[in-house]
Amino acid sequence: MKTSAAIAALISLSSLAGFSSAVTANEPTSETQPPNIIFMIGDGMGFEFISAYRYAISDINAGKLESTPFDELLSGAATTYPDDNTWVTDSASSATALATGVKSYNGAIGMDADKHPQQSIMELVRDKGWLTGAVSTSQITHATPASFFTHHPSRNMYNQIADSFATQRDDGRWSFDLLLGGGYAHFNREDKNWLPELQEQGMTVVTEFDELPGLNQLPAMGLFAPIGLPHAIDDQPRLATMTEHALRLLSEEQHDKPFALMIEGSQIDWCGHSNDIACAVHEVQDFANAVAVVREFQQQHPNTLLVITADHSTGGLTLGRDGVYEWLSERVMGIKASVYVMSKALAEMPADQWREYVTPRLNLPLTDEHWQPLMAAAEITDAEEREDAIHAALVYATADLTGTGWTTSGHTAVDVPIMATGPHAEKFRGYMDNTEIGKQLLELVR
Amino acid sequence: MKTSAAIAALISLSSLAGFSSAVTANEPTSETQPPNIIFMIGDGMGFEFISAYRYAISDINAGKLESTPFDELLSGAATTYPDDNTWVTDSASSATALATGVKSYNGAIGMDADKHPQQSIMELVRDKGWLTGAVSTSQITHATPASFFTHHPSRNMYNQIADSFATQRDDGRWSFDLLLGGGYAHFNREDKNWLPELQEQGMTVVTEFDELPGLNQLPAMGLFAPIGLPHAIDDQPRLATMTEHALRLLSEEQHDKPFALMIEGSQIDWCGHSNDIACAVHEVQDFANAVAVVREFQQQHPNTLLVITADHSTGGLTLGRDGVYEWLSERVMGIKASVYVMSKALAEMPADQWREYVTPRLNLPLTDEHWQPLMAAAEITDAEEREDAIHAALVYATADLTGTGWTTSGHTAVDVPIMATGPHAEKFRGYMDNTEIGKQLLELVR
Ligand SMILES: [Zn+2]
Ligand SMILES: [Zn+2]
Repeated sequence: MKTSAAIAALISLSSLAGFSSAVTANEPTSETQPPNIIFMIGDGMGFEFISAYRYAISDINAGKLESTPFDELLSGAATTYPDDNTWVTDSASSATALATGVKSYNGAIGMDADKHPQQSIMELVRDKGWLTGAVSTSQITHATPASFFTHHPSRNMYNQIADSFATQRDDGRWSFDLLLGGGYAHFNREDKNWLPELQEQGMTVVTEFDELPGLNQLPAMGLFAPIGLPHAIDDQPRLATMTEHALRLLSEEQHDKPFALMIEGSQIDWCGHSNDIACAVHEVQDFANAVAVVREFQQQHPNTLLVITADHSTGGLTLGRDGVYEWLSERVMGIKASVYVMSKALAEMPADQWREYVTPRLNLPLTDEHWQPLMAAAEITDAEEREDAIHAALVYATADLTGTGWTTSGHTAVDVPIMATGPHAEKFRGYMDNTEIGKQLLELVR
Repeated sequence: MKTSAAIAALISLSSLAGFSSAVTANEPTSETQPPNIIFMIGDGMGFEFISAYRYAISDINAGKLESTPFDELLSGAATTYPDDNTWVTDSASSATALATGVKSYNGAIGMDADKHPQQSIMELVRDKGWLTGAVSTSQITHATPASFFTHHPSRNMYNQIADSFATQRDDGRWSFDLLLGGGYAHFNREDKNWLPELQEQGMTVVTEFDELPGLNQLPAMGLFAPIGLPHAIDDQPRLATMTEHALRLLSEEQHDKPFALMIEGSQIDWCGHSNDIACAVHEVQDFANAVAVVREFQQQHPNTLLVITADHSTGGLTLGRDGVYEWLSERVMGIKASVYVMSKALAEMPADQWREYVTPRLNLPLTDEHWQPLMAAAEITDAEEREDAIHAALVYATADLTGTGWTTSGHTAVDVPIMATGPHAEKFRGYMDNTEIGKQLLELVR
């Protein structure tokens, strides 16, 4: 393991410890027991996505808004810029900042700007005998979970990231105790199938979502899709359920050890890239439901620190556009499928069936202005171009008819929410840089 | 005064008082002395405007960000929707919510949805013998200051709002002790010139900005422009200076009374409507400088509650656009004039002088793509259309060349920052509705 020397050096320097002593696996005491750490990241979840979610679930005629699990937790905002001669970060650089407390370039997985591996909060607590885990709705090899457990110069090295996850460290244990998410295509691929090998070595591996309740033993991996899980709007939402089982498996009744768990709502970002407002709202809802699950766990296990943030905001979402003072939340909630799924379906379907397919899924008063770009897309023969044109037409229709603004298919540099509750939550208040969040977590444990 | 009965009823119901007794003008005691209240409103200052300001003043190569006066103050976020069958508020409805704790329709000045006047925090503290004041960079008759002191069915009733300010209440005193801002055109108009009359009645009135340091007596009005003050980017910034003198005039050494002061950074919103990023950053900077002045005052007068928020966000600003991961802050800071001023100047100038005028003011690498819409605007003969086309061309050039996204010439429904410090600041934390902010302030004083 490349970082072991660096980690040893860091540990020997741990004079500013938040706890008086390290807890080893078999010697926890209730007095010195450090808190569990649950770190939730809404990928791409800028403030505007929470605003959209709240207004979407509220009745405009009710005279009051629905509450959300975020309400009493909001405590500050984070700057997210990378060490990359731009203010706009990607998920890898920001996840590296959150996991290790170190700024890096866009694309970096757990490495600094000089491509030196940096110790993450997960590596630190593992060395202290804690259990560690990650839950995501993306492939578990994606930038955010990868930055908490592995070190790679590029986020695109999915297979190498899978190899890092699959390879036991020098002490004969894996870098994690539990992974739940998508991504079995990166573990079971043409050149290598890790899954039988992992099971032989004592890892429980499941690949069907309904096997999750039966999962009873750590270490374990649940890989429920080849790459990312389906969007919440297109299928059953899964983040809250995975969170529930992760907490069951990691909770200290089971092991008498504290744990650190990273939970990512990965696809808020994906829907943002897609400029798909209904998709985004459903992903925030799934994330909010996972927050509610964690809050319930926290009631039973008060010695649990919960920190929530986002790595950046995506899409340049605004509620209201083109000078009109409205955002039509009921219309957003009337949409029944993601633009991604609808575009794929339409691209493979004769155009004379489009109206029948689209009408009950969009539930929007489409006019000629919205049908024309769709009909133009139908004329395109190149399959990929055709699907892209359909996607653009559906984005235009949904944005225009719901009053939703977007400025980019990428990320923006706007600051993102920080929320915290539980022991030491007061350390996560006001404006902080994303590296400060990572540093504070490391500091607490050292 | 229409609200006096309602106010009397409210005061008699004041069982949840934050302070044990009302303070009358001549009987303050250090024990029961309520805090001064300074309520700062960045009109249109969504989170993204603070992000823009911070990145604009920071050096991308410095390896760290500049701090801002907001950093340790941020404590939550506010929802801002009106009682108007839309989620997107205007400044009048939101200012009414902040001033009175009551939801109302877009356009309402200190009235509820049934057009009943609602008691504002300023009216409540005035009845308790406090001094009151407002500072704004808009005309003082504009929606935000007007909602704290007057009651009108429409924000557009500028002359009637001026009449309300100018007319003494039943007790022979005005509704305010100090007003600083723009708007003398509404007080000195063809059908009525209030200014000599006000002076005869004992009001000090000044209309030149350099008279402000000599202002030594309350009640006083400083009206430094016919309508709004010039944009900070085009002239000397004035909000911090007006704030300094307002605090000097209202501070309790002078009067042995507590005070409530509303300070509005009015033109963050105006630059947002104009989609003018450099203009917006300079307005946020002026507002931030005013916050710094207040914080310094607070060091000397710790019994001062400071609450800062925005009424809504404007323009749908995003840092980064069109899939490109950059926002070019140095270019933003290189711009030397507002789009408003440049458009006006170009519209009145032969087109062959445009390049010479624009080049040193924009400091941007304009290409043919940016000159073409300008040259097309030069062909337009209708003066107003010409200026609008020039404005649009300059917005396109500045947005495109700085990586700034905008989605609307109006407002958006995204939640806005809450910041608080001083006594009772803990009441302004987490997600709150804008009416809750107003209610908490009223509650503190009742
Ligand atoms: Zn992304
Ligand atoms: Zn406005």
